Amino acid sequence: MHDNLRACDHIWLNARIASMDPAVDREYGDLENYALGTKAGFIHALVPMSEAVELNSSVSCTDLHQQWVTPGLIDPHTHLVFAGNRANEFEQRLQGVDYQTIAQQGGGIQATVRATRELCEAELYELAKQRLQSWLSEGVTTIEIKSGYGLTLADELKQLRVARQLARTLPVRVKTTLLAAHALPPEYQHDADAYIDFVCHTILPAAVNQGLVDAVDVFCETVGFSKAQSQRVLLTAEQLGLSVKIHAEQLSNQQGAAMAASLGALSADHLEYLDEGGVKAMQAAGTVAVLLPGAFYFLREKQLPPIELLRQYQVPIALASDFNPGTSPLASLRLMLNMACTFFRLTPAEALAGVTRHAAQALGIADECGMIKVGMKADFCCWDIDHPAELAYMVGTHSLRSRVLGGQVVSA
Amino acid sequence: MHDNLRACDHIWLNARIASMDPAVDREYGDLENYALGTKAGFIHALVPMSEAVELNSSVSCTDLHQQWVTPGLIDPHTHLVFAGNRANEFEQRLQGVDYQTIAQQGGGIQATVRATRELCEAELYELAKQRLQSWLSEGVTTIEIKSGYGLTLADELKQLRVARQLARTLPVRVKTTLLAAHALPPEYQHDADAYIDFVCHTILPAAVNQGLVDAVDVFCETVGFSKAQSQRVLLTAEQLGLSVKIHAEQLSNQQGAAMAASLGALSADHLEYLDEGGVKAMQAAGTVAVLLPGAFYFLREKQLPPIELLRQYQVPIALASDFNPGTSPLASLRLMLNMACTFFRLTPAEALAGVTRHAAQALGIADECGMIKVGMKADFCCWDIDHPAELAYMVGTHSLRSRVLGGQVVSA
Ligand SMILES: [Zn+2]
Ligand SMILES: [Zn+2]
Repeated sequence: MHDNLRACDHIWLNARIASMDPAVDREYGDLENYALGTKAGFIHALVPMSEAVELNSSVSCTDLHQQWVTPGLIDPHTHLVFAGNRANEFEQRLQGVDYQTIAQQGGGIQATVRATRELCEAELYELAKQRLQSWLSEGVTTIEIKSGYGLTLADELKQLRVARQLARTLPVRVKTTLLAAHALPPEYQHDADAYIDFVCHTILPAAVNQGLVDAVDVFCETVGFSKAQSQRVLLTAEQLGLSVKIHAEQLSNQQGAAMAASLGALSADHLEYLDEGGVKAMQAAGTVAVLLPGAFYFLREKQLPPIELLRQYQVPIALASDFNPGTSPLASLRLMLNMACTFFRLTPAEALAGVTRHAAQALGIADECGMIKVGMKADFCCWDIDHPAELAYMVGTHSLRSRVLGGQVVSA
Repeated sequence: MHDNLRACDHIWLNARIASMDPAVDREYGDLENYALGTKAGFIHALVPMSEAVELNSSVSCTDLHQQWVTPGLIDPHTHLVFAGNRANEFEQRLQGVDYQTIAQQGGGIQATVRATRELCEAELYELAKQRLQSWLSEGVTTIEIKSGYGLTLADELKQLRVARQLARTLPVRVKTTLLAAHALPPEYQHDADAYIDFVCHTILPAAVNQGLVDAVDVFCETVGFSKAQSQRVLLTAEQLGLSVKIHAEQLSNQQGAAMAASLGALSADHLEYLDEGGVKAMQAAGTVAVLLPGAFYFLREKQLPPIELLRQYQVPIALASDFNPGTSPLASLRLMLNMACTFFRLTPAEALAGVTRHAAQALGIADECGMIKVGMKADFCCWDIDHPAELAYMVGTHSLRSRVLGGQVVSA
């Protein structure tokens, strides 16, 4: 018997593994009929069943009967922590009320900011916790959560504390991202630069000092912050030793992705209007392209992200839900796989890499999550499917059989 | 106390009811702060809480604490019973293989026909039962299920028997539809008229004799059956006393909806290419327009069904999943509500009527299901939402709190 197997805490037998490891030269890094052993929360052994036959009964085992196993899914871009919802605006727009009227009524992102400020940390936690069940039931083991609906020092930190608390209390890993530069708060309505000063000098250092933030993000857009303002925030973050990312090129080309790439950004997200220069800059910096098909769908956008250029320059493509009450109220990462194939023409294998290996890279955890490989964290899912392509092809079916986090089977 | 309440088996108190009853002059037929009493499986009392205050303790009660209650959801068009899936074709197409090559390899609907013929009734039942959990967990209380992947006498009846067995064993109502004229089976490859003879003279009478069929459907399309062939099937069904419906105007205008309406069809489904004459014919006949946004999405169609004409002529609009392995592998009626709003610009209230009152009408059960009204079957759902518009606005969240079928709380 293989020595590594002998040393394992637990072994999953008779697995068909979509390892997503590019070192395995198959579409999904397929390892057919394997044993997967875990030890102290990590993947410790990965060997063909032929080498696992003499397992003695002292090792704890689970027979997967040829179930497919994938890395635990990773959603690398969400705005999970917020209060209220914007169903009323959704309904008004469909009844013919225009955006301007809704904005004049105090709608849009400012409505979510007001509602989020009004709730205390415990109330926000309860809302987010209930929503998070949808991710767990679909096989997500790591989720990124952004702030950005507080826009004051206290309220941004409150959102981040909720995200940290979710990680402590639920069986899921959470990466937090400070997105104080998400929208201009009413207090700074005519002075965006002053708000950017406040973000750089006050919110960012406080969030870092309190250990609440894993990365910093900005919304670089005509309706968000300029490239120069965005750059100031990201530079400040870099100086504080933080990873950076950017919402860029969603509605127009502001050259935000190239700017963020020049700072070594982990990811640039949205990217519908990204040009070839931006793609090259991302390639050079190793910046991941995080595509958000839910927002593309919900906003009925027509401009497709430059998929062929991203492929040509081998920029890693990740996918995320962008879950938020304004532009992507879609609590389903599985739906994003299907939408990425349907709208963006990704292949199912590209889509699955987008919520595993490449999503991990977008969060700066590619060395520990996103693949099934010896040395990685033992985060994986077992599925009742005939082929991994089904994960992108079919939506809404209950095909998750078990979710394993750090070697422990955890409830959905 | 209200007399009807006193006679109830059970009373749900403090409900906010989206009755979907057009006699209640509010967007969702809203009844705020009501008591809903059931008796022998039917809604027996519906009274303001002010008239329910003196309830004595002998009546069994549930306090809903102002939860929203809607009619149980109805999916009026599915192909739930089939074997295999077509994830491989989905993947091949995204890898650049063309439709013709896939068809030459035996793909497309014929692949599903082969797989469905190969399985026995018990195997098909297990597959369908597992899929059906998705509908139950989303609040569906009635589902329509079509045959159409057997295309032989034995295999069409097998599919219908599975549908009937689901109704006997799971807490859901099922309406069965014979769709033997779904595709041309290989045995009749060059003689569609001979297959139509077989459907009319053999399959249809047998299905009726065995009590397996509630309605008859045909796929009227250039790639399906001609209007004349479709008419023969529906006329034969009418002569046997059955309700009829039609897949019409999905990819081209064959005038199928008008033909079916002239036979008093319950519904015409798809309808992207329906013209004003067809809309008028449907209005005159009281035929429901069943829109299928999942197939529209999955096939990346551009031609929108004529929503404004349907509204103008007050043709009732229903929505359905069209769940099937080829063109709508989307096991979520809630997603269809969102897609109908996003793609077709239905309002959330129109969308909810589409899966309640109008869906019931499309199945010929408008007098017993689809509204919360005294005398209707006690099929309803209780939701953790702030407003009924949320059911169309948000996707993937677990907001169903209870599902009631014939007055009994049933598990999701
Ligand atoms: Zn975002
Ligand atoms: Zn259909």
